Amino acid sequence: MTQFINAKESLVTEAIDGTLRTAGGRLARLDGYPHIKVVVRADWDKSKVALVSGGGSGHEPSHAGFVGQGMLTAAVCGDVFASPSVDAVLAGILAVTGKAGCLLIVKNYTGDRLNFGLAAERARSFGLQVNMVVVDDDIALPDLPQARGVAGTLFVHKIAGALAEQGADLAAVTEAAQRVISGVVSIGMSLDTCTVPGSPKEARIDPGKAELGLGIHGEAGIEQVDFSGARDAMAMVADRLAPKIGTGAHVALLNNLGGTTPLEMAVLAEELARSAIGDQVAWMVGPAPMMTSLDMQGFSVSLLPVGDAELQSLAAPVACWAWPGCLPVGAVAIVPLPDGLTPVQPLASDSAPTKAFIARACDILIAAEADLNALDAKSGDGDTGSTLATAARALRGALGQLPLADQTQLYRAISVNLSQTMGGSSGVLLAIFFAAAGDASASGKDAVDALREGLDRIQQVGGARAGDRTMIDALLPALQALRGGMAAAAGAARQGADHTATITQAKAGRASYIAADKLAGHNDPGAEAVARLFEQLVADG
Amino acid sequence: MTQFINAKESLVTEAIDGTLRTAGGRLARLDGYPHIKVVVRADWDKSKVALVSGGGSGHEPSHAGFVGQGMLTAAVCGDVFASPSVDAVLAGILAVTGKAGCLLIVKNYTGDRLNFGLAAERARSFGLQVNMVVVDDDIALPDLPQARGVAGTLFVHKIAGALAEQGADLAAVTEAAQRVISGVVSIGMSLDTCTVPGSPKEARIDPGKAELGLGIHGEAGIEQVDFSGARDAMAMVADRLAPKIGTGAHVALLNNLGGTTPLEMAVLAEELARSAIGDQVAWMVGPAPMMTSLDMQGFSVSLLPVGDAELQSLAAPVACWAWPGCLPVGAVAIVPLPDGLTPVQPLASDSAPTKAFIARACDILIAAEADLNALDAKSGDGDTGSTLATAARALRGALGQLPLADQTQLYRAISVNLSQTMGGSSGVLLAIFFAAAGDASASGKDAVDALREGLDRIQQVGGARAGDRTMIDALLPALQALRGGMAAAAGAARQGADHTATITQAKAGRASYIAADKLAGHNDPGAEAVARLFEQLVADG
Repeated sequence: MTQFINAKESLVTEAIDGTLRTAGGRLARLDGYPHIKVVVRADWDKSKVALVSGGGSGHEPSHAGFVGQGMLTAAVCGDVFASPSVDAVLAGILAVTGKAGCLLIVKNYTGDRLNFGLAAERARSFGLQVNMVVVDDDIALPDLPQARGVAGTLFVHKIAGALAEQGADLAAVTEAAQRVISGVVSIGMSLDTCTVPGSPKEARIDPGKAELGLGIHGEAGIEQVDFSGARDAMAMVADRLAPKIGTGAHVALLNNLGGTTPLEMAVLAEELARSAIGDQVAWMVGPAPMMTSLDMQGFSVSLLPVGDAELQSLAAPVACWAWPGCLPVGAVAIVPLPDGLTPVQPLASDSAPTKAFIARACDILIAAEADLNALDAKSGDGDTGSTLATAARALRGALGQLPLADQTQLYRAISVNLSQTMGGSSGVLLAIFFAAAGDASASGKDAVDALREGLDRIQQVGGARAGDRTMIDALLPALQALRGGMAAAAGAARQGADHTATITQAKAGRASYIAADKLAGHNDPGAEAVARLFEQLVADG
Repeated sequence: MTQFINAKESLVTEAIDGTLRTAGGRLARLDGYPHIKVVVRADWDKSKVALVSGGGSGHEPSHAGFVGQGMLTAAVCGDVFASPSVDAVLAGILAVTGKAGCLLIVKNYTGDRLNFGLAAERARSFGLQVNMVVVDDDIALPDLPQARGVAGTLFVHKIAGALAEQGADLAAVTEAAQRVISGVVSIGMSLDTCTVPGSPKEARIDPGKAELGLGIHGEAGIEQVDFSGARDAMAMVADRLAPKIGTGAHVALLNNLGGTTPLEMAVLAEELARSAIGDQVAWMVGPAPMMTSLDMQGFSVSLLPVGDAELQSLAAPVACWAWPGCLPVGAVAIVPLPDGLTPVQPLASDSAPTKAFIARACDILIAAEADLNALDAKSGDGDTGSTLATAARALRGALGQLPLADQTQLYRAISVNLSQTMGGSSGVLLAIFFAAAGDASASGKDAVDALREGLDRIQQVGGARAGDRTMIDALLPALQALRGGMAAAAGAARQGADHTATITQAKAGRASYIAADKLAGHNDPGAEAVARLFEQLVADG
């Protein structure tokens, strides 16, 4: 089993029940399992023309997904890729057809035509008005008068559905459906075949190839073509469609055949808009899965020439989520970047003690480079020392441009500097630390409180807590002790850093992926850096 | 290339442009390609709290698909599975944040936390109110305090989005988001890995296995489990979720991870409703692709305990199609089968000449069995004679039950009889022929006109025309000549049947798949059957 099903035999009935349960009471089914699988509108009163469609399953959301106010009245579901029986279709017709009559919308496959056709005869013998239209939108087989019915069928469902909902009579609904059928053209392309439940997947399409002009039942495409990307693929599709359409504006229905990602479908939408026929694609339905072929990694484009009446019908509201709407295709709306992305360069100002303090701090970290790298090599990739030293060298070099006399601006400037010169997560975290300290300083906090707010913020953003074997294990006790002076802070930092050697269950950062026995006995290099910084600043007096 | 993309490098920007073009003017993007990929509401006036989310791409429709009135204000898109830069996030915040402030909704991945976190600091330094929440709904890794953020994030987008749209202030929106985050739990399962553009697909999951507790970036699931179908799969998922939820009613978000067919997702919805936690799943969002992992064939279930306030927010209207709505989960609504499926048994009546005529016609077809089979073997599977003879034997045996004295009822009875006893397309077509003839007879047509209406109908339903090498090539001229007597009809039928031997381009039926040289010189067996029937009825006098 390579699919989320239970058994091939129960697949369709279970899927229908799942669909009904999650439709919010909008849908019901006839009591005819397993042979009669008919989904109907739960709120249907037979006062208007009923629309019945269906066919084999495997094309979801077609057809049950389009049952609802404004589209289909009933969907008659066969097994996967198999036409429903005459009795099933008849049951569907009889269940929803009143005096206004019923339109059967059938895709052009022999089994569907015959079974829907005979069911229509049976229904007529009860005195019901039943019309039937056959959709044959596929242009892949130019010489066969029996073109297949594929995703263009959705246009028929939607436009006939809107008219029926408005109360049009059977003749008018049928005529509108026929007009759609005579205008709509479709073609599909795929990179892979579909996986039919219970059958092995056919490996028919070689890498670098695509099938053009495929059906929706796993049948081979009319030709295999070289595949070299989305643009070229859409150009081929546009090439086939162009001779089949007139000169006016069209609606394109961009259908996901099942296994194509939304990312790919969005690229294809862009390519359709840019293609040779793009100027004629004034509206689009999708991209979305509408008439799928199980998990086929492919797409189809259906084009319908439209006037105001069709557009109004296509835009009419529907109760079924599977219909993605019909929207105008436009240029990409681009708005200017906001101001503020380039950090404002603070006005440099001088303060000899601050300058000396920062310079000394940088020197301490630069000097610790090799030791900290060696410590990091025990639990990581051995670059903590270099990361800190590189940032320290850059900050030391920028001392002349810093607003040394303004605590708020200084913290913010250090933040910007670190975010530009210090790589890795720690660079971002220290940038956050100083930015938050700057904000706190701006709101009137003194240096110690401001730095503690910075620490709060990096715990919040980074998610690390004391005891997680990170620099926080030294920085937190140091800042907590700082009101008692630098010496107290240094002692607390050292104690915290040394404690990390006993933490063998790292819960954050890279060390969380390292086995406990590799961590035991070695201080965390970030915590060690903090401890050395405080200790040596104290030692300098 | 095995995907509908042009190049890995341009994939996300092209997909965003495709999304914008087809959004009907609802969306815009910032002018920052290729590094700054931010999608914003085109109609945004900064008067309410802005919601900004995002992260790596490959999770479509997240996040751009959820930008719109009632959900997100902006989506910041990274490359596939890569966090967007600090500058990109900052641009998104600055573009949409006014006096009401901004909430950042971040999934719990280090890169996202840090980059969104630093961007928030930068934005705050401009005096903007920016809050940030981190979603950590994944329960797959029970011992890691840093749970991942997965599809449960959608609940945050929707509930915070509804409140923001209503004009709630930043504190209230943030608090609601935090409440969702503290309540929501999620877990995923997959049958296959995803295909990262530009990288070969990893074959990690053996047939018969599934991964439980996977992330949304292709990382391995927390365990591999035996897979034996949808029911068992959902039972395992329910088992993991059950200990994590309370006793009240929940909303389930049933997410397609990308490559699962709608058919499978509907089965999974049914299994979720039937599962051990099914009674607590009172509402459902989906099944639908919401937070995908490219083309991963998997699903996830997220559960959120809800009260009236949350339900109201979940049900509030949104402008983005990707949100499938939140609907009550109910029992499957079943309506009785309509009357009329069992054909009414007509009252038998007698007419000696009609009885003799039908009996003779049956005998003729029974006698022709071997000849017609041999003819069919030239262009098909050699069973036309047997198909007709079997039906003829059955009809002959039923003569005593037929309404022989009532032409309308007789045609209808023959239709029902043939539909039950005669296999293949031809059985359905002949059943349609007699049913339509019965309808025409009921409306006052005589026998000849009634039969011609039957013929019209099978041409319409079956799609075959004269010249297509089918039984119509004999039946049409015979019925056209029938007003001139049976002999004229027989002559016309013979001429038509013999003409089929020259038709080598069959356009309908099975012979359309046969090479021309195999068809030349042989009459179509259906047409031959019609000719023999008429000829021998005439010969009998």
